[in-house]
Amino acid sequence: MFFESDNSGPAHPSVLAALSHANEGYASAYGSDPLSAQVSAKIRELFEAPKASVYLVATGTAANSLILSTITKPFETIFCSNRAHIHEDECNAPEFFTGGAKLTLVPTTDGKMTAGDLEAKLLLEENRGVHGPQRGPVSITQITETGSIYSLEEIRSITGVATQYGLSTHMDGARFANAVATLGCSPAEMSWEAGIDCLSFGGTKNGLLGVEAAIFFNPELAAQFELRRKRAAHLFSKNRYLAAQMQAYLTDDLWLKNAEQANATTAYLAEGLRKEGAEITQPIGGNIIFANLPRATHKRLKEGGAKYHIMSGTLEGADPDEPLLARFVCDWSIDRSAIDQFLGLFKS
Amino acid sequence: MFFESDNSGPAHPSVLAALSHANEGYASAYGSDPLSAQVSAKIRELFEAPKASVYLVATGTAANSLILSTITKPFETIFCSNRAHIHEDECNAPEFFTGGAKLTLVPTTDGKMTAGDLEAKLLLEENRGVHGPQRGPVSITQITETGSIYSLEEIRSITGVATQYGLSTHMDGARFANAVATLGCSPAEMSWEAGIDCLSFGGTKNGLLGVEAAIFFNPELAAQFELRRKRAAHLFSKNRYLAAQMQAYLTDDLWLKNAEQANATTAYLAEGLRKEGAEITQPIGGNIIFANLPRATHKRLKEGGAKYHIMSGTLEGADPDEPLLARFVCDWSIDRSAIDQFLGLFKS
Amino acid sequence: MFFESDNSGPAHPSVLAALSHANEGYASAYGSDPLSAQVSAKIRELFEAPKASVYLVATGTAANSLILSTITKPFETIFCSNRAHIHEDECNAPEFFTGGAKLTLVPTTDGKMTAGDLEAKLLLEENRGVHGPQRGPVSITQITETGSIYSLEEIRSITGVATQYGLSTHMDGARFANAVATLGCSPAEMSWEAGIDCLSFGGTKNGLLGVEAAIFFNPELAAQFELRRKRAAHLFSKNRYLAAQMQAYLTDDLWLKNAEQANATTAYLAEGLRKEGAEITQPIGGNIIFANLPRATHKRLKEGGAKYHIMSGTLEGADPDEPLLARFVCDWSIDRSAIDQFLGLFKS
Amino acid sequence: MFFESDNSGPAHPSVLAALSHANEGYASAYGSDPLSAQVSAKIRELFEAPKASVYLVATGTAANSLILSTITKPFETIFCSNRAHIHEDECNAPEFFTGGAKLTLVPTTDGKMTAGDLEAKLLLEENRGVHGPQRGPVSITQITETGSIYSLEEIRSITGVATQYGLSTHMDGARFANAVATLGCSPAEMSWEAGIDCLSFGGTKNGLLGVEAAIFFNPELAAQFELRRKRAAHLFSKNRYLAAQMQAYLTDDLWLKNAEQANATTAYLAEGLRKEGAEITQPIGGNIIFANLPRATHKRLKEGGAKYHIMSGTLEGADPDEPLLARFVCDWSIDRSAIDQFLGLFKS
Repeated sequence: MFFESDNSGPAHPSVLAALSHANEGYASAYGSDPLSAQVSAKIRELFEAPKASVYLVATGTAANSLILSTITKPFETIFCSNRAHIHEDECNAPEFFTGGAKLTLVPTTDGKMTAGDLEAKLLLEENRGVHGPQRGPVSITQITETGSIYSLEEIRSITGVATQYGLSTHMDGARFANAVATLGCSPAEMSWEAGIDCLSFGGTKNGLLGVEAAIFFNPELAAQFELRRKRAAHLFSKNRYLAAQMQAYLTDDLWLKNAEQANATTAYLAEGLRKEGAEITQPIGGNIIFANLPRATHKRLKEGGAKYHIMSGTLEGADPDEPLLARFVCDWSIDRSAIDQFLGLFKS
Repeated sequence: MFFESDNSGPAHPSVLAALSHANEGYASAYGSDPLSAQVSAKIRELFEAPKASVYLVATGTAANSLILSTITKPFETIFCSNRAHIHEDECNAPEFFTGGAKLTLVPTTDGKMTAGDLEAKLLLEENRGVHGPQRGPVSITQITETGSIYSLEEIRSITGVATQYGLSTHMDGARFANAVATLGCSPAEMSWEAGIDCLSFGGTKNGLLGVEAAIFFNPELAAQFELRRKRAAHLFSKNRYLAAQMQAYLTDDLWLKNAEQANATTAYLAEGLRKEGAEITQPIGGNIIFANLPRATHKRLKEGGAKYHIMSGTLEGADPDEPLLARFVCDWSIDRSAIDQFLGLFKS
Repeated sequence: MFFESDNSGPAHPSVLAALSHANEGYASAYGSDPLSAQVSAKIRELFEAPKASVYLVATGTAANSLILSTITKPFETIFCSNRAHIHEDECNAPEFFTGGAKLTLVPTTDGKMTAGDLEAKLLLEENRGVHGPQRGPVSITQITETGSIYSLEEIRSITGVATQYGLSTHMDGARFANAVATLGCSPAEMSWEAGIDCLSFGGTKNGLLGVEAAIFFNPELAAQFELRRKRAAHLFSKNRYLAAQMQAYLTDDLWLKNAEQANATTAYLAEGLRKEGAEITQPIGGNIIFANLPRATHKRLKEGGAKYHIMSGTLEGADPDEPLLARFVCDWSIDRSAIDQFLGLFKS
Repeated sequence: MFFESDNSGPAHPSVLAALSHANEGYASAYGSDPLSAQVSAKIRELFEAPKASVYLVATGTAANSLILSTITKPFETIFCSNRAHIHEDECNAPEFFTGGAKLTLVPTTDGKMTAGDLEAKLLLEENRGVHGPQRGPVSITQITETGSIYSLEEIRSITGVATQYGLSTHMDGARFANAVATLGCSPAEMSWEAGIDCLSFGGTKNGLLGVEAAIFFNPELAAQFELRRKRAAHLFSKNRYLAAQMQAYLTDDLWLKNAEQANATTAYLAEGLRKEGAEITQPIGGNIIFANLPRATHKRLKEGGAKYHIMSGTLEGADPDEPLLARFVCDWSIDRSAIDQFLGLFKS
């Protein structure tokens, strides 16, 4: 009953099989092996972007920060959500990789910024000449950190504002697959066709061991990426093992099936939580649920062996009825029996 | 006949098996899983250093640069060999991770610095007050980048100088196992007992997919490592897969057996090369050979399908007898039949 | 009628005289001249802090960022006002000098943060382990960027929270003198006695050409300052010219008299503005006034030759009655006749 | 008898006068005042470069590092002399300002690099792909740190190599005026006409209080300079005081007269030293002399009150005849009577 994170689960068996398969013989190092080239081509195909530049790295923070460092100058500021992972959970990685760029936080509702709020922040940077940071790129997360989802139209309105101001756009797609599964659109529709310039296409949270693709739909924007990746110690000598994972991910739409499965399990869990009287506090765009439950209920669930994060407050408080906010995440591997077992704890 | 690099070969089968085995069920992310803790304990045991701090990262450059960034101030300079990997092959990673520290290059003979040359460089930094960079740590590589090996006494003389000047010492042990195999000493004898404060203990070049251990023998020196690792995007959420590789490495002394095998194959290759009239230009401390062969011979070998690096000059030159320097590296997986096949090309 | 900034006015004649006087003969460079030593001693005396470390630099941004870089780690975040100069007007200087630290913005009312709001922000950083930036120092500005002033008690409540959380405190005192003039307290009372660890003691806005003192009341905190100053190109070879300005500043309490004069002129201007129906929008703690006036009035004042900043909106708008916010700053050199001339423009 | 440095002497009286003159009334801050604009125009005129971008900063290290940070990427390396000030005396400032670029040291003879030695270093960076730092700009110092001087032809051969490899060139002209005085050429001939792209035009060592001009002969190269200057805390609010110094420098060729005077005094001193049997060890290109004198002589001179640097070794040694290398620098203000007084000490 592991709902702590979609980083907790195992990798899909076909990924381990692909690693074994790739573990034959010799291959040139640092990404010049044939498998790496095939995988880049497959990603271009999946995204219907024949000119895109594709690079594999091992962590989502690396994908985000390396992309941002490539498209941001040190005296610029990156516009992102006030709940953005790049702001809250990367221990200053963007500031480090960019050489000191700033982040300007755009207010959000349910984890999403609007084009209007973005424009309001952009306008604040006007008229400051050299005194304030210059406007840098715009970064949004899909699915958002709070589990909500941008519609294609919402994405287009945001990238529209960015374009109007001459700014690049980045999408943190750690859970890109879950969003595609929810919207039923194509990867192209949710990325470059909606105006996104660069994408962190996540795999680690969706059944791989550890690999993400950094994709530049406009290859001109990619100019310095490889040098910065090497400099940041993120160029893997045995790159074929990153490529093998990604190859399995792209075979038979594993990426999409894993996400659909995770979304479905999450919907089933949400339904069950609602029946138990939980208050779901955020719209569910994919595989993340935020819900309030009374302290006493949390104690029972934890004692029953359920694993999940309580976002604030502690179990040691006095009031058994006090609602505490919790986060539940289902990855591809959680099955309904685990959900049923968890829901059974409510009765006990 | 792949002698390009010890990054070219496959991982040992037991490592893939360990990955599969670790791919069961759920584990807390970011290194708080039980396997990660076990592996750290095993490393402390292997090094007979019960208080050491141990961290897993995925690349050698990450191990080196994260360690250096933890023990170096931005206004300091790191003393290293003029052939150091951290200087020549990391695309300014040390400068990046440390926030702008410098590297002071110590002259080498056969890839090794002497305590005397180190001290000469240290003395140059005297009397400059705030004008010049301050003395930072000393970093040596074992086995060196040119394949030579420091004796335990040589290591102690270097760390002795560092200690005398109040400086920390780091060892880049990308091929630490090969050095231990050659010297027949213990890991402790070649590291902290010889005065080394921090070590990048390499696995990727010696049969793993991609993992290195950053070890601080004096845990006080480790203070900020975890935060810097996270900030540099080198904290893996599914850390158990790094731990699983390292666990296989430490089981039944796989680390040592792989290295012994690689060293033995290399010795066999060296003997064969000498018989063919090659001029071995560097002492062979482990699994790297530098040898001069005539251009015409290189052409024959390359046409025969042998893979190895020619260090300078090109095959397209006019003079068939011109000696060109080449590097041959044997990893754990190269076997004698591959060597025999390669040596057979000389006849043809 | 120059109310644009306290950076617009001339330096006090005694400062130019001090420069001439210091321009005799030879002096060792880089701050080892006798005048520099005398000035440091005088500052320690003025602040009643015999152990303080004192360094001269040429700009306020340099004082702030060099101090912050000395007391902040790259993976930390600095808590400051959401109107802080270090955030809005230094073009990412803190991020640059610290090697990528972040700024966490504390909400303000009338430009001031409360201890409660600071603590709320501190608590948000709890429980994040290595994932989020670590808590770094707290920085407040006195007089604030909007012209308001913290009472001694308010300062103590803020530094009290910082101390409780083990954090250092910095005061951006670009207009420190104006605050002392308003409160009628001693420099010690408004700085270290109120719990402030480091202070940027401003001179440039208060009658000097360009010099600020960076003061560490706890010399242990100063450890790396000189090296960072040199590295940032802020160590002046002919340091005696910075010292000479500061010496004039400290002679016969010029620093205090200039500030009292500026404050008095500002009060006189404020009174006049109120009589003309202006809406003063911020409390006046020293020498800065924020006031709303109708567009048509602004046009008349500008045509009359008055120089001041309109903070938002433009003169080209259609509605003559629309209130536009303006900022008026009086430096030491503005006299009442200039105010009278300005107020006269309202009638015309 | 102050020969320690050309940073030790007073500023020329006309410079103090210009500061007083500029200290009238009000001027917009941050360089938008009329005087700053006039001075930029005068510099363009002096250099016969009507399109050049000109920026004033207060220290030579700031000029050098801000220029380098504008034309260098973080993953590049800057080619400079192994005696370069930017390498030895700026406490890692280039590494800091550029965000971690490296410096590649070119060997020198008498403080000068040849085009051949530069090319040899450039060729070492070939064929390394992303593994090594990429080639960045070339930086030379004129007059060099050891006092020697490049001929115009030598400069052209170096910039010719740089151009051939597509690299920018920077000249550290802390003593540019002294070089022009020696060669009798025009500023244009020794800078952009000889292929130099950017120049740090020094004033502080030649009679000013503290100001240098950063000049980009190709304005395209200047793109980010102003933002980086602000970010590095080197944009002076009261910029008119930097401009006033520079204006005095450019009036009646004060810059050239000061340098000619310093050079002449130095030649007179050198002649006197030779007569006393000193061994002049470096060619004298301007106002710096390196000379060996016996220990006993140094003791006598120091006891007589002469101030100059002994480069290595100490006075406390046993052997009175041991030659110790010393550096003598004459600035504009040293007159012959001081030289005569100094030479008189030899007799005593």
